[in-house]
This record gives sequence, C-alpha cells and structure tokens, in this order.
Amino acid sequence: MAQVEVQRPILEANDKIAAEHRRRFAAAGVKVLNLISSPGSGKTSLLEQTLRRLAGRLRVGVVEGDIQSTEDAQRVAACGVKAVQIETKGACHLDGSMLAGALGAFDLDQLDLLIVENVGNLVCPVEFDLGEDLKVAVLSVTEGDDKPSKYPQLFAEAGVLVVNKIDLLPYIDCDLERIHDSCRKLNPDQSVFDLSCKTGEGVDRWVDWLVDWTKA
Amino acid sequence: MAQVEVQRPILEANDKIAAEHRRRFAAAGVKVLNLISSPGSGKTSLLEQTLRRLAGRLRVGVVEGDIQSTEDAQRVAACGVKAVQIETKGACHLDGSMLAGALGAFDLDQLDLLIVENVGNLVCPVEFDLGEDLKVAVLSVTEGDDKPSKYPQLFAEAGVLVVNKIDLLPYIDCDLERIHDSCRKLNPDQSVFDLSCKTGEGVDRWVDWLVDWTKA
Repeated sequence: MAQVEVQRPILEANDKIAAEHRRRFAAAGVKVLNLISSPGSGKTSLLEQTLRRLAGRLRVGVVEGDIQSTEDAQRVAACGVKAVQIETKGACHLDGSMLAGALGAFDLDQLDLLIVENVGNLVCPVEFDLGEDLKVAVLSVTEGDDKPSKYPQLFAEAGVLVVNKIDLLPYIDCDLERIHDSCRKLNPDQSVFDLSCKTGEGVDRWVDWLVDWTKA
Repeated sequence: MAQVEVQRPILEANDKIAAEHRRRFAAAGVKVLNLISSPGSGKTSLLEQTLRRLAGRLRVGVVEGDIQSTEDAQRVAACGVKAVQIETKGACHLDGSMLAGALGAFDLDQLDLLIVENVGNLVCPVEFDLGEDLKVAVLSVTEGDDKPSKYPQLFAEAGVLVVNKIDLLPYIDCDLERIHDSCRKLNPDQSVFDLSCKTGEGVDRWVDWLVDWTKA
C-alpha cells in the first residue's frame, strides 16, 4: 500500500533518533518505559497508582503524550512527580523527535525511571521507537477479550501486559483467560499483571516488579 | 511536523477517491455511515443490535475494517446481513481505495444503507474521508468522560454520537453530562444516543432515528 511506502523514510529517520535516545538513557543510567493502550484503558490512572507507591523507592519522571490538553500532566504532577506534556496537535502517536523536545526538561542523571505515556492508540505508537527499554501494553477488560488477536503487534512487542479494571469483570462479558491465552501465543515471555486502579487490587505486585526491573 | 506534510498528498489522493465514492453512492440511492471509535467501545455489538432491529425495514450491507481477523464480519453475517471484511494488514484506518475494493462485492442499487465499521482508533480514521454521508462516533462510558476534549476532531466531525455501555455507569467514575457538554461545545448539531448494547436500553430510539435518516 502506498502509505506504508511513504512512511518508510519517516520510520527510518525515527529509528536513528531513537537509537540516540537509547545511548543517552544508558549513559545516564535511567530506565525508560513506553506505556501504550487504547484511549480510556486507564494509563493515567495506572500512573497515579504507581507513582504514589514509588515515592521514596525510585526517582521518577513522566512524559505525557496527548493530542490536545494538559489534563494528564496535571494529574501526574499532583502525585509529586515532574511531568512534561507533549501536545501532538493532531498526530496519533509520539515519535523520537517529539520526545527529544521533552527530554531537555529533565536531568536524566538524577532519574532512575522515565515513564512515557503515549497517545491513546493501539496501532501507530507501536511503530515509532522512542528508545525505550520496555513497552508496556495496558488493556482494560471492558475493551473485550478479542483485542490481542485483533491488534496483535502491540501485544506481541510489549514485554509487559497490564490488564486493568478487573473490578468490572462481574458486570461484563470478558474472558480473562482468553486475553492471557492470546497474549501468551503472541509473546510467551511477557510478564502479565491483572489489576484494578480503582480498588488497588494487584497494583502492589506490579509496582514491586517495576522496582526490581528498574534496579536490575 | 514533517509527518503531516508527507501525508498531505496521501490525503489529497484519498479525497479524490472519496468524491468518486460519494457520486456512486448518490447515484445508487444508498446512504453510507462511517462508524468510528476506540478499540472495544462496542461498534460491532452496536451493529449486531442495530441489524437485528433493521430486518424488514431497510436493506443493509456492512463493510468491516480490521487490522487482522474476520471475527467481526462473521458476527455481522450471523445477523443475516452481507458483510465484507477488509483486513488492513497493519494500517490503522480505512481509506478510500481499501473501500473501493470492498464495494465491488455489493449491488449498491439493491441497498438502502451501507455501514462501514472502521478500524478501532479515535484519530486516523477521522482524517480519511470514505465518501460517507455521516460519521457516527461511538464512545463507551468506560473510556472516561475526558475523551471528547482529548480527541476533539472525531467528536467535532461526527453528526451522531452513540454513548455505549451505560449499564456500567453505576460501577465506574464517569460523568455522562460532562461527555454531553463537551460534545455539544464541539458540535452543537450532533444527535446523541445514550444506550447499552448489553441490556438493549436506548437502542430502539437510535434505530428509529437511523431508519428516518436513511429514508430522508
């Protein structure tokens, strides 16, 4: 298809910027997460729950990607963590050059962990490497158990799967085991955390894992 | 941003194809809907509920857009309606040329209504005109009441807003009035239908409206 061909040079240029980011992150000793999900799966709620539990354990910075609005950065800042908002002004994903603009706001040497919350989109953010160490896919059970098979690239590439909103399972038709099975086929090495940002169930386990991973 | 400039020729080429579709639809006397939402907001469930109620009232065809899988077309076909699946193989939206490929499967003169279910994505599908008469935005209350302000283009352009999964309102933090207010500011002429594809609440009102609109 024409579009894929036209985008090739964009992706190649992006890969070069991402490689530069990766060198810079390694030199500073900072680990970097790229949080990817549909709109409304609860990435920002997960951040709020996570950041409160990381206080005193890790030095964290956050980059928020949104098409428009600074609401998410304000929610993160309310957790006592420095947050930089990127407004993409229509673009459906973050890319390396957008992230480069945000990185200047941080002293990377003073951070253990940088979390990038991408624009809500299961497709395009997966194609644009940001130089991160790990992609984390967030899926809400309300989106349905068919999503990994319908949007396989993210679920195949993500090293971690967070299944959110499990408090709603009694009220919906969603087979959690089908989600697990589909993702296991796409990526057998994926770490999986079922949790609820509303009730807090399962969040500690995810945060403990994140601390260990960051320090490793 | 570089990407927007590179995409300009793609969008212009697409607009020409869409204009051709629009002439063809008008000549055949078929009305065309473009259903757009996040992954998992319930587009296919809305189709199932709608198609069952349209039986005997309108002659309907459906085009299903997915990155991968034919699951949705099978669900639609089970409602007794002809469905053609477009697998985009990685592309995050349908465009005019993909739709052109699917249209050959229909005798448009024999249809009153063609419904196109786009790829689950709140951003890119909005930019690619398919020649439709109407964009219908579907938003699940589980995605949160901040989505219209964070993804304004769809909610500004959609002539109809369907707010789905209202049966879950008692279990989540979502202010339905905030959704309505945000959308009213973006598009004061939008028709709004709050409903639940699970319980059926509100679906008849939507379907009655759709029949009237198609016949108008």
